[in-house]
Amino acid sequence: MFEGIKGPNPSDIQGPDLRVLVVHARWNLQAIEPLVKGAVDKMINHHAVKPENIDIRSVPGSWELPVGIRSFMASNRYDAVIGIGVLIKGSTMHFEYISEAVVHGLMRIGLDTGVPVILGLLTVLNEEQALHRAGLNGGHNHGDDWGSAAVEMGLKSLNN
Amino acid sequence: MFEGIKGPNPSDIQGPDLRVLVVHARWNLQAIEPLVKGAVDKMINHHAVKPENIDIRSVPGSWELPVGIRSFMASNRYDAVIGIGVLIKGSTMHFEYISEAVVHGLMRIGLDTGVPVILGLLTVLNEEQALHRAGLNGGHNHGDDWGSAAVEMGLKSLNN
Amino acid sequence: MFEGIKGPNPSDIQGPDLRVLVVHARWNLQAIEPLVKGAVDKMINHHAVKPENIDIRSVPGSWELPVGIRSFMASNRYDAVIGIGVLIKGSTMHFEYISEAVVHGLMRIGLDTGVPVILGLLTVLNEEQALHRAGLNGGHNHGDDWGSAAVEMGLKSLNN
Amino acid sequence: MFEGIKGPNPSDIQGPDLRVLVVHARWNLQAIEPLVKGAVDKMINHHAVKPENIDIRSVPGSWELPVGIRSFMASNRYDAVIGIGVLIKGSTMHFEYISEAVVHGLMRIGLDTGVPVILGLLTVLNEEQALHRAGLNGGHNHGDDWGSAAVEMGLKSLNN
Amino acid sequence: MFEGIKGPNPSDIQGPDLRVLVVHARWNLQAIEPLVKGAVDKMINHHAVKPENIDIRSVPGSWELPVGIRSFMASNRYDAVIGIGVLIKGSTMHFEYISEAVVHGLMRIGLDTGVPVILGLLTVLNEEQALHRAGLNGGHNHGDDWGSAAVEMGLKSLNN
Repeated sequence: MFEGIKGPNPSDIQGPDLRVLVVHARWNLQAIEPLVKGAVDKMINHHAVKPENIDIRSVPGSWELPVGIRSFMASNRYDAVIGIGVLIKGSTMHFEYISEAVVHGLMRIGLDTGVPVILGLLTVLNEEQALHRAGLNGGHNHGDDWGSAAVEMGLKSLNN
Repeated sequence: MFEGIKGPNPSDIQGPDLRVLVVHARWNLQAIEPLVKGAVDKMINHHAVKPENIDIRSVPGSWELPVGIRSFMASNRYDAVIGIGVLIKGSTMHFEYISEAVVHGLMRIGLDTGVPVILGLLTVLNEEQALHRAGLNGGHNHGDDWGSAAVEMGLKSLNN
Repeated sequence: MFEGIKGPNPSDIQGPDLRVLVVHARWNLQAIEPLVKGAVDKMINHHAVKPENIDIRSVPGSWELPVGIRSFMASNRYDAVIGIGVLIKGSTMHFEYISEAVVHGLMRIGLDTGVPVILGLLTVLNEEQALHRAGLNGGHNHGDDWGSAAVEMGLKSLNN
Repeated sequence: MFEGIKGPNPSDIQGPDLRVLVVHARWNLQAIEPLVKGAVDKMINHHAVKPENIDIRSVPGSWELPVGIRSFMASNRYDAVIGIGVLIKGSTMHFEYISEAVVHGLMRIGLDTGVPVILGLLTVLNEEQALHRAGLNGGHNHGDDWGSAAVEMGLKSLNN
Repeated sequence: MFEGIKGPNPSDIQGPDLRVLVVHARWNLQAIEPLVKGAVDKMINHHAVKPENIDIRSVPGSWELPVGIRSFMASNRYDAVIGIGVLIKGSTMHFEYISEAVVHGLMRIGLDTGVPVILGLLTVLNEEQALHRAGLNGGHNHGDDWGSAAVEMGLKSLNN
């Protein structure tokens, strides 16, 4: 089977029956809020995901994303998950170690469960980079890509 | 379900029945002590956790945090865990390798067990940074955040 | 048994009955397309793999390669897999964390399942490096090597 | 339960019935020998571990520490393990990759088995740093700390 | 039990009944060939391993070492394994990510199976370093050490 090569984010996929879990951290809310909104709006407006099929949950910080996702997945069945957090380089090495562990943790959940977990984690060097990737100051809102990726991967996972 | 976006550490959550395990290393005690106290006080005073429901155990160094936590969790049921240690960059590469392994170890325990393990590990470049993050010299005591995160994640884990 | 030392990519191996899964990301399509084509053409033209035995699937980005591969492998039996993506260093640390997690994820799938997963991931510092390794601008198309590696490893895995 | 905060290496713990496995690499023997002796002497002289309850085994290099420990643990029951090796930065990247993998391997064994594995691995930039941490040239013998950590963690693991 | 401290590679151990698997990559053959020969000759000539008990298999590149070893181990019982490859730093980040993943993959196989997997992977910054460690240009052939390590660890694994 050759599905053809399309651009990174095809907008013609429709997931009216998909159940999606969005878990976001709450540090750097100025960037988190538009990212969450961007992902959710994209799923609803472009991919026909029903609002009532999207659960939006929060955890304190990005560190808690993997264990939170695992916990939320234990009580409901989801077809795709998006983990959203913003980590900004600080003066200690906290950024490096937490970034690496969270990214590996999110990868592990996808491979352990088979449910696609989209990486909605910004690992940036300063606040300006975070805001730009959240669609502010003229940047592209990366939540938009994450929403599309969740729908596409959720559908592919279901259909395989 | 949309729980709404709140700030990083909501103080209105109450966990009177939560059982929390706090495990701390004993190197760099000058910072460890206020961090442990900060986490415990926050849980008791702001989140209604009962003092008798908090077990505080120690291990020699941060390396022993994961295996110690695993061991303590084997004998008692806990709803949340906080692992507290202070690692300071030295002249060898010990800091880098131990930091990475401990952080991954703590992440693994959370994903293996489903019990949230809060990262109370300072990975800092000098002693001043450690003390500042322990609430000394005018800094913010990070134990305060860890206590709130433990209560919130413990409740969310229980209620899912 | 000593099979003798041959060059990196022997062209005399034939896999007419091999079923191969090729999963590619869709970011940086200018490089992805010739890489996918290079791998597929090599398998068909030099190693006698039947076109109908090659499934070509896509995922949005390199992050989704491991979970996508795992998902596609759940529904069909494959003798070898090639995961193709192009990651280019940007101004944040996204490149570093995603590269590391994807590479570990692909390694894990091979070790978990026993099915060889070939690393078709370019982790490059700029677009020029990507295009060169995709066979453009006078470079060698690395897809060519991946196709041969998939056939050889698929056969070795089957015959052991 | 609050066990109180003590210094990093309390000397008043007694482990007369503890069985301890010490596995050491044999590269950089000038540092390895005092480190092994430091750990063993501390366990016997300060913590009442019986000499006949301490097994000292060797492997060629630090790479073999994890698999050697796993193998030795398969045939005897131990309450604590110390893995001792000395890795010194060289002109290739061997040091970096071997250090990281060995440290993760030792962490994994502790978490897989529940038996505390103490990290007796020096990851140093030059020979002088290794000798100093082995108690030579006026340095503190780190084996001393490892012996105490093994006894404390072995007892805590047994009593939980 | 105290087996005494010997140098890194004792030559008086004899493994006439050991079955050893040697898997090597084929990139950088100029270094690979003497490394493989060095390891095999050492096992046969110094440690009495029977030539017919040594299986020498190849894979295309170092990436395929872990999955190849796993595959070859599935069909035959081996007492020790040596994975031999040469990775040389290039102008992209391929070297870093592949090195790390392969080293972790080899470590995992040893811990998953209990069969010692010796790290015969050169992770070098240039071709000259590779050739030197392969015994050329006056260097020490590291294959010699790997062969001894395989015999020693194979015997220790069998006898525990």
